[in-house]
Amino acid sequence: MRGKKNLLSLLVVFLLTLSFIMTPTLCSSFAEAEPAVKETRLSVDTSALVFQTDFGVKNDAVASMKGVAFGVNPKLKMFDLTHEIEPYNIWEGAYWLSGVAEYWPEGTVFVSVIDPGVGTDRKSVVLKTEAGQYFVTPDNGTLTLVAEKYGIAEIREIDEAVNRLKDSEKSYTFHGRDVYAYTGARLASGAITFEEVGKELPKEVVTIDYQKPEIKDDAIHGIMTVIDQPYGNMWTSIPRELFEEYGVKIGDELTVKITYEDQVVYEKKIPYVNTFGDVEEGKDLIYMNSELKAAFAINMGNFSEEYGVYSGFEWVVSISK
Amino acid sequence: MRGKKNLLSLLVVFLLTLSFIMTPTLCSSFAEAEPAVKETRLSVDTSALVFQTDFGVKNDAVASMKGVAFGVNPKLKMFDLTHEIEPYNIWEGAYWLSGVAEYWPEGTVFVSVIDPGVGTDRKSVVLKTEAGQYFVTPDNGTLTLVAEKYGIAEIREIDEAVNRLKDSEKSYTFHGRDVYAYTGARLASGAITFEEVGKELPKEVVTIDYQKPEIKDDAIHGIMTVIDQPYGNMWTSIPRELFEEYGVKIGDELTVKITYEDQVVYEKKIPYVNTFGDVEEGKDLIYMNSELKAAFAINMGNFSEEYGVYSGFEWVVSISK
Amino acid sequence: MRGKKNLLSLLVVFLLTLSFIMTPTLCSSFAEAEPAVKETRLSVDTSALVFQTDFGVKNDAVASMKGVAFGVNPKLKMFDLTHEIEPYNIWEGAYWLSGVAEYWPEGTVFVSVIDPGVGTDRKSVVLKTEAGQYFVTPDNGTLTLVAEKYGIAEIREIDEAVNRLKDSEKSYTFHGRDVYAYTGARLASGAITFEEVGKELPKEVVTIDYQKPEIKDDAIHGIMTVIDQPYGNMWTSIPRELFEEYGVKIGDELTVKITYEDQVVYEKKIPYVNTFGDVEEGKDLIYMNSELKAAFAINMGNFSEEYGVYSGFEWVVSISK
Repeated sequence: MRGKKNLLSLLVVFLLTLSFIMTPTLCSSFAEAEPAVKETRLSVDTSALVFQTDFGVKNDAVASMKGVAFGVNPKLKMFDLTHEIEPYNIWEGAYWLSGVAEYWPEGTVFVSVIDPGVGTDRKSVVLKTEAGQYFVTPDNGTLTLVAEKYGIAEIREIDEAVNRLKDSEKSYTFHGRDVYAYTGARLASGAITFEEVGKELPKEVVTIDYQKPEIKDDAIHGIMTVIDQPYGNMWTSIPRELFEEYGVKIGDELTVKITYEDQVVYEKKIPYVNTFGDVEEGKDLIYMNSELKAAFAINMGNFSEEYGVYSGFEWVVSISK
Repeated sequence: MRGKKNLLSLLVVFLLTLSFIMTPTLCSSFAEAEPAVKETRLSVDTSALVFQTDFGVKNDAVASMKGVAFGVNPKLKMFDLTHEIEPYNIWEGAYWLSGVAEYWPEGTVFVSVIDPGVGTDRKSVVLKTEAGQYFVTPDNGTLTLVAEKYGIAEIREIDEAVNRLKDSEKSYTFHGRDVYAYTGARLASGAITFEEVGKELPKEVVTIDYQKPEIKDDAIHGIMTVIDQPYGNMWTSIPRELFEEYGVKIGDELTVKITYEDQVVYEKKIPYVNTFGDVEEGKDLIYMNSELKAAFAINMGNFSEEYGVYSGFEWVVSISK
Repeated sequence: MRGKKNLLSLLVVFLLTLSFIMTPTLCSSFAEAEPAVKETRLSVDTSALVFQTDFGVKNDAVASMKGVAFGVNPKLKMFDLTHEIEPYNIWEGAYWLSGVAEYWPEGTVFVSVIDPGVGTDRKSVVLKTEAGQYFVTPDNGTLTLVAEKYGIAEIREIDEAVNRLKDSEKSYTFHGRDVYAYTGARLASGAITFEEVGKELPKEVVTIDYQKPEIKDDAIHGIMTVIDQPYGNMWTSIPRELFEEYGVKIGDELTVKITYEDQVVYEKKIPYVNTFGDVEEGKDLIYMNSELKAAFAINMGNFSEEYGVYSGFEWVVSISK
């Protein structure tokens, strides 16, 4: 009897000790469990913060954004997509953002600042995709391709009354730092929930209206997406599938017409080949690039510089027999 | 009675267990509490290590600095301000450093290496500002604006006998890596205290003597601080307050005179306007930039290239009615 | 007696409590201790992942590699050597890699992707040096200098059946991301052991055959290793020791002959001096650079641009009296 009582006591002290040790863990679990409605709070341990801007890296703009983020939480894991977006080229930002996101895990927070409209009434938003990634950006077209490719789960407008670096309203506001980096950092580190970003908006974004790849009027249509630097090859948005549907075969001579804001910049009949070496040096060619999209090049030359062809949604291309 | 004794025993075992578990924590607390005089030891968890150099990113110099820092402590959180400082342009380094520091928290360690005088007797120092940030750098003018803006709390000379990468004295010394990155890493990670950097120096730094913004002889004086790339707009050090004090109003025509080492490079009467569009394309203008400092531009043009005006403390400007 | 029994019970509960707390630690220790043969498993806490490519930073290639690595383990500590390798310049990659590695600790994993032969039968390998560092790369010459300088402890071929991003075989494969970054990340984070990379290969790598520094036929021979940008000074592979062995003294006039693929590009008698200022402005000179290797320059000029001399193993130099 006494033995049992003692054992019981021992068990009690064992559990007491344990519970004492576990208290902080249990408390935080309860704290998180509190809200009746499920809120989305990211964890600084698993959510990366990825920056994209057109600020370049020759000044202190990007470092001031990261400083603000570090001040929010020194555990934040920060990365760069690129800061070498052509100034104000929203299309380019939209393109890289949608290209890279699928290689980052759920919960990643992207902060993209290409903001020619700073000071206008463009909205500052956070878009959550159906894949559970977050995009903090001015809603100025930057989200065109992300919304199209990954789907919109929810969009919220950043409430600058609360989601803005303290005291930053006193002087000149650098939105990239004071609003976007700050909000992205607070979101990725769980300092705020997604719901605390601000009020929910209708599930739509400002989009750049661009020529989607399609076959129409007996031609394949698309746009020049990017310049493959430093070679100057020009990539289009036209996938191999459209070539097959249109009945293009290796060796075919095709008429390529490239326009910029409806002005013809390039028009020529050139061959669709397997590799650059299939044409003479200095000759134009069509090939399938590493993304399996149609692309133009000059064998041993620079197509972009030679013909003054650049990239963006304003650069429309048609290919026909 | 027996019950009480048992309870006592249980309490003892409870405390014993706890103390056993807590021992490492307690020990380290005592260890840190030891010194009678308060020393400054940073924590790797909260102190960032931020690099700035003129080394560019096309070689292995920056990566070797980071490798040395990683070897000091793999938990170090490293960031880049910029490595694209114009080679040997100490002014530019001083400018970005003072611009960015306020956006990083207390305890941040900046390592700045723009070092035209390597091999001369310029001192290697760590400056602690009154805001509690640290700047590891050759004392060659790099600290001019940091000291002016944030105040000097303390300066110590790096004692290379102890604060230098082991074995690095055997061959060629790359000070950026072997002394500055190494010392910055040891300081930021708490491997050494600030006091262990080396002996304290008088609270003064080598300064670049530059024209401070002021009104004198019926004109506003200042310098060309940076080129706003890629646009080629030229920013000055002259704040809006001086315009107000001098009585400048929007629409006024002002005489702008820019000299380089006392040679006049630009002299013209141009208007002070709200936005670029207030003048015809191709015309010069004065405007207030995003830092609320006076700046010069050509509407739809590149002021810097057009007139051969660049930035630095040697570029002095005066503005008068 | 009862007292002793009680004490015993207390000891038991104390140990029980402890063992309960330590269980996870003990378990993992046992788990790791299991294999009879010692395997090499790195720890994400101490192994850095360092990237080098020729992709540039104006697109999403590097960010997609880092995204994949982050997906493997968000604790990975990632760094950049450089992404500005001249496209397809394997020599340059080999040079920086061997230059920087000694400044990173044992256990560092380097991922280098300069891969002109993608799609050919070049092997994908991981080389472990005798210093215990790992190099994940196509075996195309990139390892030439690393193998020579640090020694080969072991080489394994990446088994793409298991060491490849899931689902990446469905579409176009970006090896830099899907194989190299993925495998480097899994290796550095301990998700796989070095042994699990794939089957062991003979201890040899594809090497670039280059003129090693030597004295032969009464001349000192070597190659042009890198251009010291932005100055345009040309560095050679010839160490000071060979100058001493050959009997060169400061002030000597030496015949420098530089060839590119056996064509003479530069041939001139120029002085070996201490500093640039020892010759008139615009005059050529030989000096010892910061790595204590012979180098060529024009005082106040750009040697590389002036004479069309660049760097790489194809650029051979001889120096004679």
